[in-house]
Amino acid sequence: MRRIPLPLPRAALWALIVAAPAAAVAAPDAPIDAYRRAHEVQILGELDALVRLRSVAADPQGLSDTAAHLLAALRQRGFEAQSVSAAPGTPPLLLGTLSSRGARRTVVFYAHYDGQPVTPSQWRSPPFVPVMRGAPPGEPEQEIDWRKATPPFDPQWRLYGRAVSDDKASIVALLTALDALRAVGRRPTVNVKVVWDGEEEAGSPHLAELLRAHARQLRADLWLVGDGPVHASRRPLLYFGARGVLGLELTVYGPLQALHDGHYGNWAPNPAALAANLLAQMRDDTGRILIPGFDAEIRPLSAAERAALAALPPVDAELQRQLGIGRPESAEDLPDSLMRPALNVRGIRAGEVGAAAANSIPTEARVSLDLRLVPAQTPQRVREVVEQFLRAQGWTLLSEAPDEAARRAHPRLIKLAWEPGYPALRSDMDSPPARAVIATLGAVAREPVALLPMIGGSVPLYLFADLFAVPVIGLPIVNHDNAQHAANENLRLRNLWDGIDAYAALIGRLDW
Amino acid sequence: MRRIPLPLPRAALWALIVAAPAAAVAAPDAPIDAYRRAHEVQILGELDALVRLRSVAADPQGLSDTAAHLLAALRQRGFEAQSVSAAPGTPPLLLGTLSSRGARRTVVFYAHYDGQPVTPSQWRSPPFVPVMRGAPPGEPEQEIDWRKATPPFDPQWRLYGRAVSDDKASIVALLTALDALRAVGRRPTVNVKVVWDGEEEAGSPHLAELLRAHARQLRADLWLVGDGPVHASRRPLLYFGARGVLGLELTVYGPLQALHDGHYGNWAPNPAALAANLLAQMRDDTGRILIPGFDAEIRPLSAAERAALAALPPVDAELQRQLGIGRPESAEDLPDSLMRPALNVRGIRAGEVGAAAANSIPTEARVSLDLRLVPAQTPQRVREVVEQFLRAQGWTLLSEAPDEAARRAHPRLIKLAWEPGYPALRSDMDSPPARAVIATLGAVAREPVALLPMIGGSVPLYLFADLFAVPVIGLPIVNHDNAQHAANENLRLRNLWDGIDAYAALIGRLDW
Repeated sequence: MRRIPLPLPRAALWALIVAAPAAAVAAPDAPIDAYRRAHEVQILGELDALVRLRSVAADPQGLSDTAAHLLAALRQRGFEAQSVSAAPGTPPLLLGTLSSRGARRTVVFYAHYDGQPVTPSQWRSPPFVPVMRGAPPGEPEQEIDWRKATPPFDPQWRLYGRAVSDDKASIVALLTALDALRAVGRRPTVNVKVVWDGEEEAGSPHLAELLRAHARQLRADLWLVGDGPVHASRRPLLYFGARGVLGLELTVYGPLQALHDGHYGNWAPNPAALAANLLAQMRDDTGRILIPGFDAEIRPLSAAERAALAALPPVDAELQRQLGIGRPESAEDLPDSLMRPALNVRGIRAGEVGAAAANSIPTEARVSLDLRLVPAQTPQRVREVVEQFLRAQGWTLLSEAPDEAARRAHPRLIKLAWEPGYPALRSDMDSPPARAVIATLGAVAREPVALLPMIGGSVPLYLFADLFAVPVIGLPIVNHDNAQHAANENLRLRNLWDGIDAYAALIGRLDW
Repeated sequence: MRRIPLPLPRAALWALIVAAPAAAVAAPDAPIDAYRRAHEVQILGELDALVRLRSVAADPQGLSDTAAHLLAALRQRGFEAQSVSAAPGTPPLLLGTLSSRGARRTVVFYAHYDGQPVTPSQWRSPPFVPVMRGAPPGEPEQEIDWRKATPPFDPQWRLYGRAVSDDKASIVALLTALDALRAVGRRPTVNVKVVWDGEEEAGSPHLAELLRAHARQLRADLWLVGDGPVHASRRPLLYFGARGVLGLELTVYGPLQALHDGHYGNWAPNPAALAANLLAQMRDDTGRILIPGFDAEIRPLSAAERAALAALPPVDAELQRQLGIGRPESAEDLPDSLMRPALNVRGIRAGEVGAAAANSIPTEARVSLDLRLVPAQTPQRVREVVEQFLRAQGWTLLSEAPDEAARRAHPRLIKLAWEPGYPALRSDMDSPPARAVIATLGAVAREPVALLPMIGGSVPLYLFADLFAVPVIGLPIVNHDNAQHAANENLRLRNLWDGIDAYAALIGRLDW
């Protein structure tokens, strides 16, 4: 799905995710921390090298070079690793397995090595030449030649470069965690598998097919997804699901040509008014979806999920202030409201407004919707319900623009263009592996871990759960203010260091 | 008000105006007709000279030259005439009076001498160099050097040039009618006054002020407005009113910046959805206005008006076919539906649609409306009713964009930008002067006269009625397919000849 860079909103989203009281606060893992302190130059060198590889869709060679580099990095750590592609020239998916003697469980760590497209003119420095920046408190930020600096480095420093946060930091944290565990003489408590995607920012068009083709070697007990940022308070976060999504473009037809609305207003159907009325029939002012049967498939929240939501302290007032919102749509707070399906109006267009407005009845009105789905809604079923609703309202549904005969023959014509969409996932927060992940991360985290049953945005977590029938948990490590998808993407060193701790715990301590 | 060039719609509009059975069919006035046949070269020469004068807003000198030319033309016919301006440099209004011994009644003939702006590149020949075109049936149209041709000319020929139809034809028809009456030795039966506007296409910004200032010398018993085209069947037309108009631009506010609709959908108010819901509360799918009190001031149609509407044969089926309309908005036919007020959505804009649509909640939605008013609604009262409705729905009304504090303080913010607007007019079709006009025109018309109580489009007829408390009747003469306001504006000679007959009758026979 399309994403838009939204620095404040993303920050604000994560601001709502706060510590669940259940998660214990503990000290970092001292030996792992010591290893990291002793190897900061080496770790940053690995990340720097990775960011220099231009792994963006516009650069197939850069993606291929990145895959080759990472394949070598995996093999160097003892992985059985392979690079698989759906077709020649498509960015490879990297699969790796590192078995651990005595391990009873197997965990797949998913991340993506491709990055969002770049607009270099918007960057302060070239996106594929990593630059460290930092400043003492209260002084202006400046570039730092970290290779000449003496470690340990200031953890507030940030490394700038495309994909440094999204997701190359997670990849380097995992590799470093393995190095650290080996250096301190600990064997992984789980068998480690990696799935590193080269097409995530392009919508992972071949991921399902490749996962299916390699299902046997991907057998596991748990998936951990190293995508997304932590909470804006800089507390760690685990998320257990994501809403699904289903895009829909509607076109409502009026007269064949724009008509003078003085001479025809009240007689020639006005498609802008029809589209507005249709939207009002689909959704009320509180965001409640009015389409009959739309909520028939919704699975209620579990006790654990309700408890997790209840444990989140209210942040709505601050968000309302930041975003200039006088009244939230619903009576619920933000986390609760995101547990429901949403009918979002992405856009509506008909005629013209302001100085360009002519006194005319437009020929058509276009409405762009995205439906956010929750378990157990399916795109297929939602599509059926919406189409049934439209037919019941007297609309004739089209997949192409109507010809003149069709326009004359039918009183209400609407063209529907559905995007494929995908369903939501809420993984069980109370399963043994989930409890083990929460406890294990909590044991090494510097602050309480925030737990979210489901993020409001859509990530195709369902795919892993559907294909492999295993719990799927989101394990983000990077700072919320990383300018993900925008210019000047960056990674705060503290987040990388904490991320290494997190990965080391989830590889070197996890068991259930 | 803004107008858009709509060749088919305008044609289609006038197509619905058909003969009222009440209007008698009679022979043209033979002496007037004979005069015209003997003077076709002279009449066309007068029109040709007038079209060559560049009377468009972009050419103040052209407007001034045209006014001087017309002032001379009036004085030459014995008018007491003057040119008055609201301010130096503004196009003058021409006022003329030709008293007739023994006349009991005084009629003001209104027309405008300014034309719409031109885009010469769209014209087949320069807009201010009149060109005659015509062809025998079935052969391609070609330019005709009419000065070298032998009259009487083919009445299907057309003269092309800016303003030739809108309204210079009406001006020349009046002047020629006076010449013809004098030539055949008839004295006008009414005192003739003219009001020739030089700013009509610019919205007549100074007209009311100038009319008020010269109210005493404009005393009259009737106004006849020589604007607009006749019926598409080429039958003559009289109209007795026009809907009023009141434009309104609405802006509904959402969050301060676009928000990811996955992470905020259902919580941050979506202004596109709010705008759609608001529109649905204001107007239903049949065009019925739902705002309480909106219809409180509506004056019912009179028996004569209802009879005139009933006399119009149905043309809706053909219009539906031409315009690709499967279902008219209302259960009424077009003429009836135009007798009601309309809430037209000129445009609606929020976010983006199609490939440009982002998964975001837009920051604002804009809606452009025009309200078409009917007697006795006033812009002021309609504005009050709409604002009262919005407040009752919980909206805080603004005249400027809100600041951040206002956005935080109010749950529903809407900015309203009202255009000044003006009221409708339906003049009494059954008054003695109206009956006299209908009968007088019917007596000389080649075909039955179509009678329309009120046109759906807005023309400020109310102004004349308000200022002078007299009947106001629309007396168009030009062909419906004149490309009014567009390139290649033209006048069919038959329409000019019939127009001369009409003016001669209404000056030389009218009495009541």
